[in-house]
Amino acid sequence: MAAEQGWTGEQVPETMRASVLTGAQQIAMQERATPRPEAGEVLVRVAKVGVCGSDVHYYRDGRIGPFVVDSPLILGHELSGRIVGVGDGVAADRIGERVAIEPQRPCRVCGQCKAGRYNLCPYMEFYATPPIDGAFCDYVTIQADFAHPVPDTVSDEAAALLEPLSVGIAAARKGAVVPGSRVLIAGSGPIGVIAAQAVRAFGAAEIIVSDPVAERRKMAERFGATTTLDPSVDDSRPLQVDTFIDACGIPAAVVSGIKSVRGAGAVVLVGTGVDEIALPIPTIQNNELNVTGVFRYTDTWPLGAHLVATGQVDLDSLVTHRFGLAQAEDALNASLDPTSLKAMVAVA
Amino acid sequence: MAAEQGWTGEQVPETMRASVLTGAQQIAMQERATPRPEAGEVLVRVAKVGVCGSDVHYYRDGRIGPFVVDSPLILGHELSGRIVGVGDGVAADRIGERVAIEPQRPCRVCGQCKAGRYNLCPYMEFYATPPIDGAFCDYVTIQADFAHPVPDTVSDEAAALLEPLSVGIAAARKGAVVPGSRVLIAGSGPIGVIAAQAVRAFGAAEIIVSDPVAERRKMAERFGATTTLDPSVDDSRPLQVDTFIDACGIPAAVVSGIKSVRGAGAVVLVGTGVDEIALPIPTIQNNELNVTGVFRYTDTWPLGAHLVATGQVDLDSLVTHRFGLAQAEDALNASLDPTSLKAMVAVA
Amino acid sequence: MAAEQGWTGEQVPETMRASVLTGAQQIAMQERATPRPEAGEVLVRVAKVGVCGSDVHYYRDGRIGPFVVDSPLILGHELSGRIVGVGDGVAADRIGERVAIEPQRPCRVCGQCKAGRYNLCPYMEFYATPPIDGAFCDYVTIQADFAHPVPDTVSDEAAALLEPLSVGIAAARKGAVVPGSRVLIAGSGPIGVIAAQAVRAFGAAEIIVSDPVAERRKMAERFGATTTLDPSVDDSRPLQVDTFIDACGIPAAVVSGIKSVRGAGAVVLVGTGVDEIALPIPTIQNNELNVTGVFRYTDTWPLGAHLVATGQVDLDSLVTHRFGLAQAEDALNASLDPTSLKAMVAVA
Amino acid sequence: MAAEQGWTGEQVPETMRASVLTGAQQIAMQERATPRPEAGEVLVRVAKVGVCGSDVHYYRDGRIGPFVVDSPLILGHELSGRIVGVGDGVAADRIGERVAIEPQRPCRVCGQCKAGRYNLCPYMEFYATPPIDGAFCDYVTIQADFAHPVPDTVSDEAAALLEPLSVGIAAARKGAVVPGSRVLIAGSGPIGVIAAQAVRAFGAAEIIVSDPVAERRKMAERFGATTTLDPSVDDSRPLQVDTFIDACGIPAAVVSGIKSVRGAGAVVLVGTGVDEIALPIPTIQNNELNVTGVFRYTDTWPLGAHLVATGQVDLDSLVTHRFGLAQAEDALNASLDPTSLKAMVAVA
Repeated sequence: MAAEQGWTGEQVPETMRASVLTGAQQIAMQERATPRPEAGEVLVRVAKVGVCGSDVHYYRDGRIGPFVVDSPLILGHELSGRIVGVGDGVAADRIGERVAIEPQRPCRVCGQCKAGRYNLCPYMEFYATPPIDGAFCDYVTIQADFAHPVPDTVSDEAAALLEPLSVGIAAARKGAVVPGSRVLIAGSGPIGVIAAQAVRAFGAAEIIVSDPVAERRKMAERFGATTTLDPSVDDSRPLQVDTFIDACGIPAAVVSGIKSVRGAGAVVLVGTGVDEIALPIPTIQNNELNVTGVFRYTDTWPLGAHLVATGQVDLDSLVTHRFGLAQAEDALNASLDPTSLKAMVAVA
Repeated sequence: MAAEQGWTGEQVPETMRASVLTGAQQIAMQERATPRPEAGEVLVRVAKVGVCGSDVHYYRDGRIGPFVVDSPLILGHELSGRIVGVGDGVAADRIGERVAIEPQRPCRVCGQCKAGRYNLCPYMEFYATPPIDGAFCDYVTIQADFAHPVPDTVSDEAAALLEPLSVGIAAARKGAVVPGSRVLIAGSGPIGVIAAQAVRAFGAAEIIVSDPVAERRKMAERFGATTTLDPSVDDSRPLQVDTFIDACGIPAAVVSGIKSVRGAGAVVLVGTGVDEIALPIPTIQNNELNVTGVFRYTDTWPLGAHLVATGQVDLDSLVTHRFGLAQAEDALNASLDPTSLKAMVAVA
Repeated sequence: MAAEQGWTGEQVPETMRASVLTGAQQIAMQERATPRPEAGEVLVRVAKVGVCGSDVHYYRDGRIGPFVVDSPLILGHELSGRIVGVGDGVAADRIGERVAIEPQRPCRVCGQCKAGRYNLCPYMEFYATPPIDGAFCDYVTIQADFAHPVPDTVSDEAAALLEPLSVGIAAARKGAVVPGSRVLIAGSGPIGVIAAQAVRAFGAAEIIVSDPVAERRKMAERFGATTTLDPSVDDSRPLQVDTFIDACGIPAAVVSGIKSVRGAGAVVLVGTGVDEIALPIPTIQNNELNVTGVFRYTDTWPLGAHLVATGQVDLDSLVTHRFGLAQAEDALNASLDPTSLKAMVAVA
Repeated sequence: MAAEQGWTGEQVPETMRASVLTGAQQIAMQERATPRPEAGEVLVRVAKVGVCGSDVHYYRDGRIGPFVVDSPLILGHELSGRIVGVGDGVAADRIGERVAIEPQRPCRVCGQCKAGRYNLCPYMEFYATPPIDGAFCDYVTIQADFAHPVPDTVSDEAAALLEPLSVGIAAARKGAVVPGSRVLIAGSGPIGVIAAQAVRAFGAAEIIVSDPVAERRKMAERFGATTTLDPSVDDSRPLQVDTFIDACGIPAAVVSGIKSVRGAGAVVLVGTGVDEIALPIPTIQNNELNVTGVFRYTDTWPLGAHLVATGQVDLDSLVTHRFGLAQAEDALNASLDPTSLKAMVAVA
């Protein structure tokens, strides 16, 4: 244990390893200064980091819409670890705690933050979103309240995946999923199967997952779907669901999904990939649908940890590929395989 | 006063005049049997009927989307009148009452009705929507609770226009307009200027109306706009409004409006005319916008009557053209003039 | 099968048995005319009827607050049965259907009904509430949409108990119980253990049930409680729950419960029995608690049937005493035993 | 202009005047060190400070419920002023700005803060609440986002009174007051007349103010009431209002008000003074009333400033007594006069 200027904690090395995106499709291991926690922050020894579609986008394309990588960037924002140091004002007994990181730093002062929508903070600094570094490295810092304690029964990998589960929880909330809801989910990739589990935990009575690939439909059944559909075969569906969650971003699926919702139902657009989709305006109007999207999350980690600890959500089984930190680039490439669900990088 | 089989009321003739749409762009005066009120209904001597854009659509095109006129149809659903008879179970002292008609007959039994969303009733019978007749005639019937009393200070014309005001009120509610709201409205036609007045009555602090026609922008200023914009000149607007109401249905205006809304703000699509609009999905997602539409209304007449009676909303000044029942076709044609606001048909 | 004037159905006798409350603590078997379904109604052969605390109140005291029994009354409003006839406008293929009855007849026309709060209809006719007869008899009628279909996997007794489950569901909704909620329930009687099961189905992570009787606390653990408390021992609780549901009506429990709720949490008063309780106003104010009550329910049967059919709620195990229709008075008396949970009357 | 260590601003003296509560009913002028703004804060030259009922309570009784004055305390939390210095991270061009102070310092980190309910922050430091000093002094500091700019058309006195107006706005929001609402307010003191103006600005159609004192009923009519009632004469009121706001804290008024609300209506308890009130539980239950309270406010100043600047709310006319800082004790005593509305202390 050492007390340095402004923080307290275990001995940590002056420098650490970092896997850095240095250009489009270029990843290099570098040595970086180990960060120190500011007041109110914790220093975390990273354990596991999941690979997200957005990491792959930055790696492959060097940008996501308006967010452009124009200087070296550490990717990775789905992570777990252990607290090894605390900044001023943080209780020292948190040192040693296993945590899952909510990888965002809102300003806490603007109107959105004060209204409880800190995910929409225009001054947000978010891990692995240029120019803010992420978690493919040995140590990170985060504001103490965003380092969420993890029960012993939740593995490091599952703890890392509380981040994508948070997206699923946010989608279930935005979609007003309640006990008895009938929900359609388009797409049975990582987000689709996580959303299926999330809406099941919210009490959905019917969970219909649509995907053109038979193998992926099978996966959906394993993770909560009560029915699956092949949209290439059966697309004449008067499903009249309460909620439609798009988890694929494919225009035809979005349009078909919107037409499947009952009057006053909800449409939650989670899938990304295209800048514009031609939507059926009269369908939205005549049914007074509520169409919205999910951008990050607020207050999801404690619930996510509870759902995993109680077995209501299974995140461990989502991990299909595993790599070391030095193989982060392989992890990114593995995620391009359409039958992979989740690649995981073990840092410690 | 006469008590007939199943109803009580004033003497009414056996037949009445009706202005009937007999084919695309064909209106004919016909003699029809005067209706009799069923149990729970009232019989209303029609006073005034406003012409709505949807009437013009049916007249000109013979259809609106899935709703096709394939047999003779009486148009008109914005109306006021006087109760002249009551069916079983309706208090006879309502005879003589001046009323504004909420022109819908929901089933009152389905899930939407029981959930308080009777406007979305799939069994709805709505005036002047095929095959249900409307109000360009001497007498109509309606369920008693949908014949709303009108204070003496509200004219017959204003009472008829409580119907489009109801759309404005519904838009203000759907758009979560509250005291202090900043609202953008696209389009300064009848719905635009009514929406401007409605959101002003809901306390909006800024009401920005966008319209390419200078004359119409002037009208908007008269009816509540605090600022007007010419979208053909100034379309680089980081307005960050709380609510955007589309009242024109023009794709470019809808897209531009969506981009003008702050995080977690509301988009209410009221304008009609196109089946599809290419919407900027990342804008909706990254700002978690709430996009919805307005389809008719629930529980708007009492508020509308109050707003008019207290001078918070001016409907009388919207009437730019006046006709008799025999000139209903002229009224429909007058509504095609872009500088007209509202054509009114006097029946009694 | 017989088609009579205005309705269709199986042959039913002209008269039927009814167990009638003829005075305070006086029950007599009588012969009554078998009812006939009006238009829109169904005729139901009663199967099982649960005894509710309110039945016992009417039996013992002849009144509940403002509701006074001043003429003979058939008690019983928790019931299941089989449709044996349908009135005009109801599909004949419903004959034979096993149903659970939502025992209320709202007017469907007033402002509360049209706003989706038909439980608050001031013109409500509710089973077994003077002067409306209930279900301790062979046949009843109800509006067709309030005869809810029951899956084969749900027993007649469980189907009858969808009524008290509806109260539990309504309490969970009013209490804004969501996945992860921490809930305190005061009282482990029939309503307490049903509420515990309901909030568990709504995803509550902690369900703390308080009851001074050890046996009843044990029962609570069987039906969903994650913790139990003896209020006579441990009442210094800074529990900071999200929701407090009172299911006992005892003033000390209500006050203690209110003091256990976190800022902006919910208090749902379900327990009855006293006309006034001295509430800690500064606690409500300084924490901006939301205090409300439950009066009947809207739209709860389909969800209840789903929860029972999927094993999320166990109603069968609540039945501790069973009687025939002729022994209805014994059933009422059995309910006075504090360790009884639910007495059930078998009619057919 | 001077740049000192950690902040920038105008020259301010080392010490300042402060009117300090030194014991029950003892106020003394003292010399105190002028505060310096921390990072993110502004330094404000106090202009006007209104006297609130809570100041009077502390002065007279030395406590309000659990909040006890056990060391010298500067009272006053309704204030306006001018920014004369800014801490690190605050734009220097704010120096010179006229501001109204939102007198609270939430932690911005706890669950309540992050959920948008910073008024319920358990770590709150609130002006003039022991042991936090208030504003009866020359200079105060506050976090920059809680120093709200004031338009030129709003006087210093009105700016100070944006604080009690905030309570009225919070009450209108909690009471779900919308255009057309019918509202009952009990009590025509400062909070009652401010609440009346607030609900009028929110569109209330009927505003019924109840007060036993004729003079005060007259005042209510001047400030928004559409009707007034003398509760000592007329208390048999089936008013069926949408919202009841208690602004007096008198038990009989609270009970009578609760009985005046329609099904599913709102009860907002603002008045203080007693620890317990015996409430009619069956009335709350059978009507599913929503009973809550107001504790401070979130996000009310910008709306308040707009309402005053546009003349929708008149705060200037509320000031009935004026004093200098050295006469703060007289101001506190003046507030004890039941016909006074608001005493104002001029500091600069």
